[in-house]
Amino acid sequence: MKRLIDLRSDTVTLPPDAMRRAMHEAELGDDVYGEDPTVNALQEKAAERLGKQAGLLVTSGTQGNLASLLSHAGRGDHVLVGHQSHIFKYEAGAASVLGGLFLEPLTNREDGTFGEEQITAAVNPPDVHRAPTRVLAIENTHNLAGGAPVDAKATKRMAETAHAHGLKVHLDGARLFNAAVAFGTEAAALAEPADSVSVCLSKGLGCPLGSVVVGDDDFIGEARRWRKMLGGGMRQAGVVAAAGIYALDHMVDRLAEDHENARRLAYGLAEIQGIVLDPEAVRTNIIYFQTEQGISLDLAKRLEKRGILMDSEKTLARLVTHDGISSADIDLVLLAFAEALR
Amino acid sequence: MKRLIDLRSDTVTLPPDAMRRAMHEAELGDDVYGEDPTVNALQEKAAERLGKQAGLLVTSGTQGNLASLLSHAGRGDHVLVGHQSHIFKYEAGAASVLGGLFLEPLTNREDGTFGEEQITAAVNPPDVHRAPTRVLAIENTHNLAGGAPVDAKATKRMAETAHAHGLKVHLDGARLFNAAVAFGTEAAALAEPADSVSVCLSKGLGCPLGSVVVGDDDFIGEARRWRKMLGGGMRQAGVVAAAGIYALDHMVDRLAEDHENARRLAYGLAEIQGIVLDPEAVRTNIIYFQTEQGISLDLAKRLEKRGILMDSEKTLARLVTHDGISSADIDLVLLAFAEALR
Amino acid sequence: MKRLIDLRSDTVTLPPDAMRRAMHEAELGDDVYGEDPTVNALQEKAAERLGKQAGLLVTSGTQGNLASLLSHAGRGDHVLVGHQSHIFKYEAGAASVLGGLFLEPLTNREDGTFGEEQITAAVNPPDVHRAPTRVLAIENTHNLAGGAPVDAKATKRMAETAHAHGLKVHLDGARLFNAAVAFGTEAAALAEPADSVSVCLSKGLGCPLGSVVVGDDDFIGEARRWRKMLGGGMRQAGVVAAAGIYALDHMVDRLAEDHENARRLAYGLAEIQGIVLDPEAVRTNIIYFQTEQGISLDLAKRLEKRGILMDSEKTLARLVTHDGISSADIDLVLLAFAEALR
Amino acid sequence: MKRLIDLRSDTVTLPPDAMRRAMHEAELGDDVYGEDPTVNALQEKAAERLGKQAGLLVTSGTQGNLASLLSHAGRGDHVLVGHQSHIFKYEAGAASVLGGLFLEPLTNREDGTFGEEQITAAVNPPDVHRAPTRVLAIENTHNLAGGAPVDAKATKRMAETAHAHGLKVHLDGARLFNAAVAFGTEAAALAEPADSVSVCLSKGLGCPLGSVVVGDDDFIGEARRWRKMLGGGMRQAGVVAAAGIYALDHMVDRLAEDHENARRLAYGLAEIQGIVLDPEAVRTNIIYFQTEQGISLDLAKRLEKRGILMDSEKTLARLVTHDGISSADIDLVLLAFAEALR
Repeated sequence: MKRLIDLRSDTVTLPPDAMRRAMHEAELGDDVYGEDPTVNALQEKAAERLGKQAGLLVTSGTQGNLASLLSHAGRGDHVLVGHQSHIFKYEAGAASVLGGLFLEPLTNREDGTFGEEQITAAVNPPDVHRAPTRVLAIENTHNLAGGAPVDAKATKRMAETAHAHGLKVHLDGARLFNAAVAFGTEAAALAEPADSVSVCLSKGLGCPLGSVVVGDDDFIGEARRWRKMLGGGMRQAGVVAAAGIYALDHMVDRLAEDHENARRLAYGLAEIQGIVLDPEAVRTNIIYFQTEQGISLDLAKRLEKRGILMDSEKTLARLVTHDGISSADIDLVLLAFAEALR
Repeated sequence: MKRLIDLRSDTVTLPPDAMRRAMHEAELGDDVYGEDPTVNALQEKAAERLGKQAGLLVTSGTQGNLASLLSHAGRGDHVLVGHQSHIFKYEAGAASVLGGLFLEPLTNREDGTFGEEQITAAVNPPDVHRAPTRVLAIENTHNLAGGAPVDAKATKRMAETAHAHGLKVHLDGARLFNAAVAFGTEAAALAEPADSVSVCLSKGLGCPLGSVVVGDDDFIGEARRWRKMLGGGMRQAGVVAAAGIYALDHMVDRLAEDHENARRLAYGLAEIQGIVLDPEAVRTNIIYFQTEQGISLDLAKRLEKRGILMDSEKTLARLVTHDGISSADIDLVLLAFAEALR
Repeated sequence: MKRLIDLRSDTVTLPPDAMRRAMHEAELGDDVYGEDPTVNALQEKAAERLGKQAGLLVTSGTQGNLASLLSHAGRGDHVLVGHQSHIFKYEAGAASVLGGLFLEPLTNREDGTFGEEQITAAVNPPDVHRAPTRVLAIENTHNLAGGAPVDAKATKRMAETAHAHGLKVHLDGARLFNAAVAFGTEAAALAEPADSVSVCLSKGLGCPLGSVVVGDDDFIGEARRWRKMLGGGMRQAGVVAAAGIYALDHMVDRLAEDHENARRLAYGLAEIQGIVLDPEAVRTNIIYFQTEQGISLDLAKRLEKRGILMDSEKTLARLVTHDGISSADIDLVLLAFAEALR
Repeated sequence: MKRLIDLRSDTVTLPPDAMRRAMHEAELGDDVYGEDPTVNALQEKAAERLGKQAGLLVTSGTQGNLASLLSHAGRGDHVLVGHQSHIFKYEAGAASVLGGLFLEPLTNREDGTFGEEQITAAVNPPDVHRAPTRVLAIENTHNLAGGAPVDAKATKRMAETAHAHGLKVHLDGARLFNAAVAFGTEAAALAEPADSVSVCLSKGLGCPLGSVVVGDDDFIGEARRWRKMLGGGMRQAGVVAAAGIYALDHMVDRLAEDHENARRLAYGLAEIQGIVLDPEAVRTNIIYFQTEQGISLDLAKRLEKRGILMDSEKTLARLVTHDGISSADIDLVLLAFAEALR
């Protein structure tokens, strides 16, 4: 079968051989008893890399965000999220549905951030008609803002505003390492202002599954309890954790390649007649674009015939670069787009 | 004590003597067994007035909205509400917190309605990442849109769009009779497009407490179950229902007076230096205004010294006319405002 | 129509004339603003009578229990209740369903109490597999234990055990005044060991609706928040509260009559062939009995023909005395039973 | 380090080399898109082995049970579970806490089953005071009943009673293959009466993590939705699924060894002075025992010094045999017990 160039998401990455070997050889134990040495090593490494006290391996980014929100806020609390955030758009309302939290979407600015005045205005006064505001959730990189990386300064600004109102700050850092690489900084610097951070090991880091949540010891104790209740407790989870350790050691720096490929792809697409796209806005591994005739669904089919997969919804389409996409692939993709739109 | 002119809300109305007499003389029974004749009579009367099969007496508008949403939608379902709706702003997130519903606020247009395209765009496609969309909740009159009455045509348009996507439509008609009086139409005409309607007996109708929910028999059966679970089951509730019957018989037409008073108040205020207000927009019994210097909290205090109460939040203030406010009071209020802002 | 002797429940009582007059004449205000003087007076009176800092008027006993449990315990907490308690049997699981509490039923002893060892054994150790135990709920009088009054000593014993494990104690005192009258003691003495108490104003006290929850100021602050969310906030609730004040002043002592009537009824029934009943066990206003042939449903019908209503479920039947049942009625009831079972 | 003989649980098993090789070599894809061929193969194989239409890989047994209950029952529904079941005892009340289900524990008989009359009596009549009964959950093998296997006849009897009342039947078959091996029958025969079954791939089957839920297509569609919401969606989950396929192919028959080891261990222990144990009751891989002096915690410590781990709670202790325990180990364990209790 002809190889597909799959740009739908960086979640489609296959683990590299060395990562699979690490999984194969991992020392294992029963993590429900806290006895899997590889899990413990991953959790420590992730906590250290993100500058927090402790870490917890969870099954997915959705589970990491959910366990974090359940840990920070109780039944009936008010949680501020971005109207374009993954938490609000793509997690089926889990925090409301399962956790009795009241989510209020703040309008994300184009760069995925919020203004201080937006946060302040959304904090409810003490009043039985209003849910007490407890958490602000931010996202970095911000997927629906075109994979925009949010810098430490903006993160700090939002977090300080939230903290001034007594809120906790959760950072959905599914692709936080992409932001760190984009800024040439440490992930810990971006994580510093947040009370908790969830980072995905799958996606650009190439693990088959898993995310890590980090925060202080009390928070992680709570998150462990909610993880269990969600059925996220795993036994010999070292097989998963080994991939995570490999990823943190070997897969972070290479995200720069994905960014370079995305940038080149964006500039190339911007020159193709019919594509609406600002290549300057592409700063990590995600490209959103529109087409003049709004033909993205049809376009997706024409590209698929040429062996190229993309993610499309009505008028908007998304391309994501990752470990499975080479620089040579970018040339093929640009060619295919040019043909498909001719 | 000097009499206060209380314009904070129409919820402050005291029941008129004749209403209290009706309460005093009401025939009673145990409504949990369905045996209170006055409750049954009110429920039938309300259902008939609103053109639905059946009715249910509940304690409050919040309970009416909550029991309705719980009846229409199950755990995990997606419910579309106005970003300025009472359900989203002033019910402490109850439907999310207690009912596991995922509320998504649609941006209300200035008149309190939604465009069809807004509704259509918010309906989630079948996708495990998204909650299944089941209900659209609308509000009439729309409090935060300045008490705007929503006409039958706009209501029908929104409901038809929702129904076309398989949604149920709940109408928060806390002040639906105000809308009916404003349009000189029957409340049933405004209620017709909705699957369920919650109407308050307190507020402008002058009852001390209580709301009625109406809909078809199955819906009311479900709502009765949720009312019980919320602790809203009352025993000899005929004492409350008798007030409701009196209100439906005698208090609806007089809402026209409140509207006339509000109109006159609005035009008067618009002429006072420092008040920002479009009197044309005042069509029922609610007036929102701003002041040039954003001094409403201070203004509230100065008015209170003159025996006038209003509802104010930072830069916005609200005045509501009702059964306890006479035409003569309006003159006093205008005078006090002029003095307070001099 | 022939007058019915309605022994199904003490919830069927009609308010006496003087109580209705008090309701008619009550001074009112908007309780959502805390301005209804009659509500405030009732809440203070109830708190004082039960020896607690503060009180809160709620719509029903179910709402009182629910708001109390939601105030004491957060999402995911473990709450110990009696397997025969009203909370576990007749509140539709509200605390689990709406509040995310995990209810565990402890087996009630015949007198409606628990042994200390039962409580201790049920407290979960810290373990992510188990919900943290936070509340013990007790009931007095205990309806399904035959209206058994629980004395201060037993209450204290249970509460001390619970407190020793860090639990809060909620007392469902729907009929607590019946217990107080049975023991010839103050209700406050029975309420003292509990952190919160819910007492019904309807039932034997004769109010048309309403319950009061009492506890310390912080607890009542929380309960007020949950009441609002449940839609239990009422506006001019003084009409309801006035009945409660009358009841606390005039209806408590007369419960002794109901107990005497129940006792006489029980001894009379015990002599009728076919009735299985220990009259010694009847100590308040509730009688449960079985019949030798398990014919209670049929028996209920035969009694209904004679103008007597009772509550029956398969093999068990219940008779409850109250303000609407006179000593002469007891004679009629005994006669009717004798005929019906002949 | 001296090798430990770990009898705390069969969850401590380490995957055998051939299983790890299968994981290493598994063909992968993105299961959130349904494209992981190994996951699909496992789900089909599990469904076939258990005689159902479809299967779903989940992270853990807790998640399998939770997703199943959420799929069968809506907010406010009543679910019957065993008072000694894993769902009631060790899943932190998840179905109540997260799912708004009202769990009622039925008293398990000594063999882990329920009588038909227990089920029938627990089904609530239609009544707003009671939650509608929707699901019966059974467990096989029944852990706290000493790993008792429940035969097809008893399963059928319970399920037929439940079905007659319109309930769904969920089988927590965490160790269902142990039951099948104990009876020398197919797992499908034991699963047949149930509407859904959750089976663990870890525990005796030796996988590092994972469970499979099976049922009809509609059920699995719902379960997939709830799995996503719980954060149980995994990407290249084929690494996990490959272990499951290996387990179903190679690890089921060997459970007979664990049973034989447990039997021999039980008979040996029964002869040791101070151990209270009926070896006849040990029919799969789980042994519960008491000691005469209730010294199990102390005993656990003395055994640990001899390199043997067991699971103990106050007066009860548990030993579980599994792939990591050989026949020779049993001799060592018996020797150590004899010494420790001398």
